Amino acid sequence: MAIIKIAYQGEKGAYSEEAGLKFFKNKNLKFIPCKKFEEVVKEVEKDNADFGVLPVENTTTGSVTKTYDLLFRSSLKIYGEVIIKIYHCLLSLKNTELKNIKYVYSHPQALSQCEKYITKKKLIPVPEFDTAGSARVIKEKRLKNAACIASKRAAEIYNLRIIEEDIADNPWNYTRFFIISKKAPKKGNKNKTSIVFSTHHRPGALVKCLKAFSDRGINLTKIESRPQQDNPWHYNFYLDFEGHLEDKKVKEAMNELLKNAVFVKILGSYPVE
Amino acid sequence: MAIIKIAYQGEKGAYSEEAGLKFFKNKNLKFIPCKKFEEVVKEVEKDNADFGVLPVENTTTGSVTKTYDLLFRSSLKIYGEVIIKIYHCLLSLKNTELKNIKYVYSHPQALSQCEKYITKKKLIPVPEFDTAGSARVIKEKRLKNAACIASKRAAEIYNLRIIEEDIADNPWNYTRFFIISKKAPKKGNKNKTSIVFSTHHRPGALVKCLKAFSDRGINLTKIESRPQQDNPWHYNFYLDFEGHLEDKKVKEAMNELLKNAVFVKILGSYPVE
Repeated sequence: MAIIKIAYQGEKGAYSEEAGLKFFKNKNLKFIPCKKFEEVVKEVEKDNADFGVLPVENTTTGSVTKTYDLLFRSSLKIYGEVIIKIYHCLLSLKNTELKNIKYVYSHPQALSQCEKYITKKKLIPVPEFDTAGSARVIKEKRLKNAACIASKRAAEIYNLRIIEEDIADNPWNYTRFFIISKKAPKKGNKNKTSIVFSTHHRPGALVKCLKAFSDRGINLTKIESRPQQDNPWHYNFYLDFEGHLEDKKVKEAMNELLKNAVFVKILGSYPVE
Repeated sequence: MAIIKIAYQGEKGAYSEEAGLKFFKNKNLKFIPCKKFEEVVKEVEKDNADFGVLPVENTTTGSVTKTYDLLFRSSLKIYGEVIIKIYHCLLSLKNTELKNIKYVYSHPQALSQCEKYITKKKLIPVPEFDTAGSARVIKEKRLKNAACIASKRAAEIYNLRIIEEDIADNPWNYTRFFIISKKAPKKGNKNKTSIVFSTHHRPGALVKCLKAFSDRGINLTKIESRPQQDNPWHYNFYLDFEGHLEDKKVKEAMNELLKNAVFVKILGSYPVE
């Protein structure tokens, strides 16, 4: 089986890697960890990787604007989407005694998502760059008075003990990831399309653009305005809708949109479950 | 002059505090630092503070979803908005020699926003809980081999030296804050209104709601869909538009919206510059 190379941001055991595993299940995979989101895009652009994995939104913290900004500038397309539950666990070295744990290491966002748990257990939070990285730190430094917050997979990878599972204050914690690639995916039974466009700055301009979809019974699944990075106080709109660019009514809607928008860029048409 | 009490999240010298200072300039202010966003809301609800300051969106990192989620659940209203430039500076102890600086402390987001600068200067980033907090750490621990990334005001407060100003990779870095209160502000010459609503899940439902505004020439300044926290795969829409709830055409639009939306909640009508 040919090896599929997948670039992702983070360390071994990161949630992005888990998203890649879920999307390409039972395939022969080689993961390429990257320090930055930009590097993920570059690895795919330079053909060092076949696919990249980037988080797009989280149910608690909202959109990952960096991903949208990168897609906006890149010619890579969205190949697919995958949603995973963020399942924060408290991990420690195998022989650490519970009563000796004073500190808990993790990314500030994960620490904040588990705030009630940390307060109840009277642990002192210590910030780290990422969740998987905090597991590596516990392991490498053999920290006996500390635990970390990371995924179940991170426990396996770094041979740590799972003290408690799913400790986030709000268990409804999901992240949606985009799989990006130079390749176009096959059209599925159900598809989604992601685009970005801007409108003229006048009342009704956005509604006129959206009417292109509603007039044709096309369901929008996400809308978001983002300030343009190089054009103060002007906005781009990021839109997800149901359907594929090859569908007749989507083609019609896109033609109508092109008449009314300042610009339109397609981020991808991809199958969904 | 009566003292105005203002709750904000962060330590002394935080950008939220700066936003409060800018909004209430030349007033007699007492700032109440809070550890969490939730506490800011509580302090105002319990009348311990007259106003609260909460960040809502940043040009680089997007919306602060926690603020929206809190406003959604609270009966406090938006009293005003204030936009400040995030002006990241490299700070150190007064007598630290440049050549001795190896580490740079700050919140991971600030570190990431100054990544190019940090790489160029070959500094090792160290994560902290917030920017102002990293300034306090440098001061309290008398760190001679480290600098931090924080605001100019943090330099004054903690008596640190400003090594370099405005070091973010993208200088277009602004944060918009809401001032929240039990009080309603006076209507200004120019006003904005922020609302949240949800629609029935069918094609065209959103456009029907937005048409209430465009039909009356009301300009939308922000739109964003957010997953409902307790209702998987259903969305709320956060909308900002120009105008005041007392304006005739805004009243008409709101009546029209109420006919088509599942629910509507007003977050506030407030003057803008």
